[in-house]
Amino acid sequence: MENDTVLAMERAALDRWGKGDPGGYLEISAPDVTYFDPFVSRRLDGIDALKAWYEPIRGKIRIDSDEIVDPRVQVAGDTAILTMVFVSHGSEGAKRWNCTEVYRRLDGEWKIIHTHWSFHGDNTVVDQDLG
Amino acid sequence: MENDTVLAMERAALDRWGKGDPGGYLEISAPDVTYFDPFVSRRLDGIDALKAWYEPIRGKIRIDSDEIVDPRVQVAGDTAILTMVFVSHGSEGAKRWNCTEVYRRLDGEWKIIHTHWSFHGDNTVVDQDLG
Repeated sequence: MENDTVLAMERAALDRWGKGDPGGYLEISAPDVTYFDPFVSRRLDGIDALKAWYEPIRGKIRIDSDEIVDPRVQVAGDTAILTMVFVSHGSEGAKRWNCTEVYRRLDGEWKIIHTHWSFHGDNTVVDQDLG
Repeated sequence: MENDTVLAMERAALDRWGKGDPGGYLEISAPDVTYFDPFVSRRLDGIDALKAWYEPIRGKIRIDSDEIVDPRVQVAGDTAILTMVFVSHGSEGAKRWNCTEVYRRLDGEWKIIHTHWSFHGDNTVVDQDLG
């Protein structure tokens, strides 16, 4: 059940992301979230740092089609680790990501306490690699 | 205290890694470990898959100098999430990695249940970026 919950939360946040709205992620990230992606020069520590990183790209991302590939959720007590490959096509071209999301249940509510987005291989992705 | 424990485990595994020995990581990874790095085409699921990935590079890696930059450990019950930047110089050239390690305590013993290594930016790193 935790599996379905966190996967649905992630999918909903991605749907908003693909329309240029980072708010889906910001709303489900914990105050003490830590965050890596390939474009930020350091780990971001805390929701305010993540907001400062995401707000300038609000309205600038458009995903036309995407797929969560092979999601897996490892549940350990009140922690759930979602790992997936995410393939997207849109304003940024074709991308294939590795993604880790660590969710923590606090007062019955799941929040992301750590996010790690990265590219497989180098950053140049060709379509035939996306199958 | 958990912070010191998992960071010391990671440092010890890295020391062996830098001498071409993946055994340090294999010994502290859980049977159900999941694993991402930039070079493997999919998520690896389970210790046997990780062994199969690591064994062919045994003896082939040599790190001459390295640094764990800005490590942070988020403890949530029996789960500890270590995040760090790892900078290394050696047989693979100069590399700057983002790293997430999720440790889980089972029967009093910490084991890695998820690993995510990735590159910051594209894969070409120049020395002045490493400061």
